[in-house]
Amino acid sequence: MNDSSDGLAVVGAGVIGLAVAWRAAAEGHRVTVLDPRPARGGASWVAGGMLAPVAEAWPGEEAALALGEESLRRWPRFAADLRAEGTHPGSGLSESGTVVAAFDGADAEQLDVLARYLTGLGRQATFVTGRQLRRTEPGLGPVRAGLLVPGDLFVDNRSLLEALLAAARLRGVEFVPESARALAADTVWTESGPRRFAAVVLAAGAHSGTLHPQLAGAVRPLKGEILRLRARRGTVPPPARTVRAVVEGRPVYLVPRTGGGLVVGATQYEAGFDTTVTARGVRELLDAAERVFPGVAEYELTETSAGLRAGSDDTVPYLGPLRDGVYAATGHHRNGLLLAPVTADAVLAWLAGTEPPEGTSEARPDRNSSEERIDAGLRQR
Amino acid sequence: MNDSSDGLAVVGAGVIGLAVAWRAAAEGHRVTVLDPRPARGGASWVAGGMLAPVAEAWPGEEAALALGEESLRRWPRFAADLRAEGTHPGSGLSESGTVVAAFDGADAEQLDVLARYLTGLGRQATFVTGRQLRRTEPGLGPVRAGLLVPGDLFVDNRSLLEALLAAARLRGVEFVPESARALAADTVWTESGPRRFAAVVLAAGAHSGTLHPQLAGAVRPLKGEILRLRARRGTVPPPARTVRAVVEGRPVYLVPRTGGGLVVGATQYEAGFDTTVTARGVRELLDAAERVFPGVAEYELTETSAGLRAGSDDTVPYLGPLRDGVYAATGHHRNGLLLAPVTADAVLAWLAGTEPPEGTSEARPDRNSSEERIDAGLRQR
Repeated sequence: MNDSSDGLAVVGAGVIGLAVAWRAAAEGHRVTVLDPRPARGGASWVAGGMLAPVAEAWPGEEAALALGEESLRRWPRFAADLRAEGTHPGSGLSESGTVVAAFDGADAEQLDVLARYLTGLGRQATFVTGRQLRRTEPGLGPVRAGLLVPGDLFVDNRSLLEALLAAARLRGVEFVPESARALAADTVWTESGPRRFAAVVLAAGAHSGTLHPQLAGAVRPLKGEILRLRARRGTVPPPARTVRAVVEGRPVYLVPRTGGGLVVGATQYEAGFDTTVTARGVRELLDAAERVFPGVAEYELTETSAGLRAGSDDTVPYLGPLRDGVYAATGHHRNGLLLAPVTADAVLAWLAGTEPPEGTSEARPDRNSSEERIDAGLRQR
Repeated sequence: MNDSSDGLAVVGAGVIGLAVAWRAAAEGHRVTVLDPRPARGGASWVAGGMLAPVAEAWPGEEAALALGEESLRRWPRFAADLRAEGTHPGSGLSESGTVVAAFDGADAEQLDVLARYLTGLGRQATFVTGRQLRRTEPGLGPVRAGLLVPGDLFVDNRSLLEALLAAARLRGVEFVPESARALAADTVWTESGPRRFAAVVLAAGAHSGTLHPQLAGAVRPLKGEILRLRARRGTVPPPARTVRAVVEGRPVYLVPRTGGGLVVGATQYEAGFDTTVTARGVRELLDAAERVFPGVAEYELTETSAGLRAGSDDTVPYLGPLRDGVYAATGHHRNGLLLAPVTADAVLAWLAGTEPPEGTSEARPDRNSSEERIDAGLRQR
């Protein structure tokens, strides 16, 4: 048996696993990350990169909002620390903000409700007319009303993942290119046998439900397709901010990248572990993107891809020790990039025995558990 | 100077250049092909592979129909000869036929006109009701009427190109991975200098107009985008035949491939030498494909690509000696794959001084020439 029994195992090298590994190694932990495709194999590589807890808030979902905002507050420092490692240009954090666009009367009413809710909570969110919104983002289509959310940010997800990978390596993290097949509080089994650790963090995203009985059924794959496009000579430039909208009942977002790039996402299906890019998914995203930002029709379509989010029942992740002592850092639903800093800080607190960040207690893994689910999970095992 | 002054130069290694080179080498000619990306660089690699002169016929375009049918008659022998070389499984020639589908009353009327025209010419084309057509191709959408054209065939264009490349190599064709910059009846200039030949065939597709003043303006790039899709478990299988239709004024075709593949094409733009795949092009093709064959929505989208057809003014190619003795085998418009056998046979006849195939005289390069165009072309030079 491989023995790293003074060390920390992190199962999964998406944004959560890499953030945890980098931060823990920087604190002096001996860290091993197990993943056959670090950075590139999971949902965070496919994502748009929105850090938008306010624009995505909704009455009744206060736990998600509080945790998201807690992490958003930690983002600038997280990005600065990462840049300070000197291994990579950094996370591509943009502070240009987010707008939400409504294209019909019903959507505009929804935005008005959201604006009142957010200002009631003291958040910065301004309801504006369509004309005002188009002054801010002139490339938008015939928009009825909008919401300006200057505090919601975005990152370049791929730049971030590469920066985290480089920083983790710099800090001595060992990467084992194998999949975990089973795990316990002090052991991870892979194809090459068991490895011992002092502690194990489960950050396997959509696959977490198959690796731990307490998460079986609670974390499920939520397929998402995205497009990557690029402005061409003579086309309108991409929006300066993230643009969110709902088109024919489906949410869509457009997140700019430097150099004229644009990410359009995302479909959302429950389709098991399927990551096929479908004709329907691409067509729906193209239709929606053209509705929101007509100039995109002349952009180059450079990539179509699909990933599997780690869906949770209530969109809130599962953070904290499971009953057998494995630490869960998973179930981040559509918010893994946003929640990476607060999740990494929570793991450090668990390991140090200090108080974890505010909001994480609402994310404890047993919050929704019924005996039936736990029993079902254990029986499946 | 490189001297192959007893040999034949073929400028361009798309389907026309490769067919000419293979056939000429098999007849004992010493052949050199000049192309930086043999097989893969041009329109024929991107194409759908329809061999459909009848389904694409229209009153007034009898020259194109006659030449297309002359080539279609030569296709089975061409495919058999290629297979007999033993270097490749072959051209993927399918004899399952073509159907044309009309989705509204106006399209159905057009089909009726076409059916009467074709049966008047003695061609096999049967006008059927929508119900009858759906019995033949059950995956079609709500179709109003159709045309069965059993004699129109299709090939797997990429398999064909690879088979031609292998057969040409087997027959001793020399491939020079360079672009022609200028040419005359006995010389081709590339980046590495001039090369002498006994004869030069210009088969450079969309680029032919920039290589010879007599073709300047007469051959122009006609951009086309296509999609490649694949059926998945649980989806309806692809159609057995090529399906053609017009959706919102734009022609679309669906050409099946073995193994559940499907090629959907094609957009048509005049956009110079641009080969960018645009959001609009992909969206239009996906919309049209779903209208024609709804089950395609669940297919995997495996590729989007664009190519440049060698557009001609009247859709008929330019076949024969130009005024300075260079042989033109270009301007095949949307029909390079269909017209490859007759074009290769025409080149062999020119070289042997025998009678070229029927229909090729209607394609002589000077058929439309006005002094203005020739003067303009010469001035451009």
